[in-house]
Amino acid sequence: MDLTLVKQLAISSSSKIVLLVADGLGGLPRETDGRSELEVARLPNLDALAARSLCGLIDMVGPGIIPGSGPGHLALFGYDPFIYQIGRGVLEACGIDLELRSSDVASRGNFCTLDEEGRVVDRRAGRITTETCQRLCVKLDQIRIEGVEVIVRPVKEHRFVVVFRGEGLSDALSESDPLVTGERPLPVKVVSPGAERTAELVNQFLDQAREALKDEKPANMVLLRGFAAPPQLPAFPDLLRLRAVAITCYPMYRGLAKLIGMDALPFCADLDDELRALSRNYDQHDFFYVHFKAPDRAGEDGDFDAKVAALEELDRRIPDFLNFHPDVFIVTGDHSTPAILKGHSWHPVPFLLWSRWSRSAGVGRFTERECAQGPLGRMPAIDLMPLAMANALRFKKFGA
Amino acid sequence: MDLTLVKQLAISSSSKIVLLVADGLGGLPRETDGRSELEVARLPNLDALAARSLCGLIDMVGPGIIPGSGPGHLALFGYDPFIYQIGRGVLEACGIDLELRSSDVASRGNFCTLDEEGRVVDRRAGRITTETCQRLCVKLDQIRIEGVEVIVRPVKEHRFVVVFRGEGLSDALSESDPLVTGERPLPVKVVSPGAERTAELVNQFLDQAREALKDEKPANMVLLRGFAAPPQLPAFPDLLRLRAVAITCYPMYRGLAKLIGMDALPFCADLDDELRALSRNYDQHDFFYVHFKAPDRAGEDGDFDAKVAALEELDRRIPDFLNFHPDVFIVTGDHSTPAILKGHSWHPVPFLLWSRWSRSAGVGRFTERECAQGPLGRMPAIDLMPLAMANALRFKKFGA
Repeated sequence: MDLTLVKQLAISSSSKIVLLVADGLGGLPRETDGRSELEVARLPNLDALAARSLCGLIDMVGPGIIPGSGPGHLALFGYDPFIYQIGRGVLEACGIDLELRSSDVASRGNFCTLDEEGRVVDRRAGRITTETCQRLCVKLDQIRIEGVEVIVRPVKEHRFVVVFRGEGLSDALSESDPLVTGERPLPVKVVSPGAERTAELVNQFLDQAREALKDEKPANMVLLRGFAAPPQLPAFPDLLRLRAVAITCYPMYRGLAKLIGMDALPFCADLDDELRALSRNYDQHDFFYVHFKAPDRAGEDGDFDAKVAALEELDRRIPDFLNFHPDVFIVTGDHSTPAILKGHSWHPVPFLLWSRWSRSAGVGRFTERECAQGPLGRMPAIDLMPLAMANALRFKKFGA
Repeated sequence: MDLTLVKQLAISSSSKIVLLVADGLGGLPRETDGRSELEVARLPNLDALAARSLCGLIDMVGPGIIPGSGPGHLALFGYDPFIYQIGRGVLEACGIDLELRSSDVASRGNFCTLDEEGRVVDRRAGRITTETCQRLCVKLDQIRIEGVEVIVRPVKEHRFVVVFRGEGLSDALSESDPLVTGERPLPVKVVSPGAERTAELVNQFLDQAREALKDEKPANMVLLRGFAAPPQLPAFPDLLRLRAVAITCYPMYRGLAKLIGMDALPFCADLDDELRALSRNYDQHDFFYVHFKAPDRAGEDGDFDAKVAALEELDRRIPDFLNFHPDVFIVTGDHSTPAILKGHSWHPVPFLLWSRWSRSAGVGRFTERECAQGPLGRMPAIDLMPLAMANALRFKKFGA
């Protein structure tokens, strides 16, 4: 969406938009019978809804491009994922609900094992337990460096986040992770001018970390990568003149939503919990982002049947969502995660958009193939929010 | 259309293109039977033509964006409506066939009523009669301001146009209309640098207008908004090397066509009159823009049946248009105006393009749903003129 234009056209309204994101929704046909997860699953509610909705496929980023959850979600929210990139360090911080300031630089970290020559022999320190990680993070969090605040927080197993907090920092830094074993950790270098001081501070941190961990086994060093500052982007609620809230079960998505200025509720346990949260918060907001993780997890595990089951679980709740009578109801995903590929893919993602003003597709079932026949065919994901706004009668006319 | 490219590729030819614009053509299904105006209307001629034409849907501006007639028409003529914007003042001047020079600044005006404290109590001065408006415009047209010519012309009821004519003027001005009652008219301010002198002159006009109207009741002041200079754009006939003429019944569209350099015939009374004008002018021109207003008017009135009748009226004339044997014949609209929405909407607009060289769609009926299945599916409206030019064999090859 053209953010300048959208800001100009958005008007206040009492209409409500629900965006239900089934993570990794899109799939591919399995070999046995040539049917995808969406085609095998029994989805009577989604099918009935699709028949009276605008349906199509969305490309999150572009043809052939495999989106991470960051770009996928940004595109769904209307932000061009090429322009507004969320670096790995920031995403990792989102993942543990660690709030960042606009001037922070965050990095993803791995505990690793060095041999006596200082070469990396295990980039994951044998996958130490999360408890060990927590203990070591407390140690590293004590590190003091002149001119910057250092915040170290555990993620899981060997993974952690480090945030450098100060003025005038830059994320234009190279990684210390050599990405292979048998090499020494690399000194962090400047990738573009202006990052010299930050590189200096990060290297000091790395020296002090080596010192603090030298007697530990197996995690006797850290590797840092994905240095990132929070993206500078206009806040979603301000841009679109709506009160937006995120209803999620996982920190990453809550963090993403907060990054763009949405309110974010405390974590829900599951879909039913999310429906209860939607109910409690329905009156106070206009836009509801609801996230359902299970299809993606099953897809990444390569578990076709589990993904089918997850989709069927979602389908059973569709009447509950419809009972809120949102003015606009969208069901889609942030990318495809085909079980046969065991990971995110580039394939466009089905979507349905129901509103009183949507021209229905005449699509029979909510599947990849049928949505491809829908009147919108295939479109960029960043066009979905403008459509949602128009269908919610939240845009004024463009031009006289 | 890429204007530089198009200018490079356009060649002279004797081929003729007729662009028939049914204003507000696109619609939405009504609740009773789920059929749109185009689906209910009996359109045997358009259906037969669609079956042997290229069909699809066009987005005038972009997904979710509701076009005014200005952007809608510019897009049909091939100009990117984001780049070339027609401000309200200019459109209002078009509407009364008031010709503008490229250095003019035009503004829409309302006669209004102020109380004794100078606050607006009625932004439309009780909707004075058009006769009163004419009388008051003659008064205001006498206003003399050093350094600029002032032209004041009535539009209808409380509405008028004022044109400031001089050198070095700028339309980067704020509005004097507070848009609510109970507030005083605002001084016109500069929106971006370079407009200081124009702001000064406009405020002088407003002071003198207050003086001239002080004894009038109820129209004792004016409110100005939509300051606009004519858009700087390359002239359509020069760009495309064709003699273009506009055949219309309403000033707005005649004015729009003239803005982009087309010849414009005197107003026609109705479709039959337009067909006679087409006949009289057929030999002297290559491109014919013919405008039919009725579907939009019915749509804006929320009158589904009247819109159906208007479409059927258009359909009956299709054989008459075909009798001219144009090399390219296009039927489309400048935006959708669904009767159930009572106004312009964002929904893409059906089009058909017939030429000897168009790949026919195999579309059965000229409706939104069927056109969506056409081979072009959905495309930006600015791609229509290049297609028309190509089908008219008016483009040379691009590249060796």
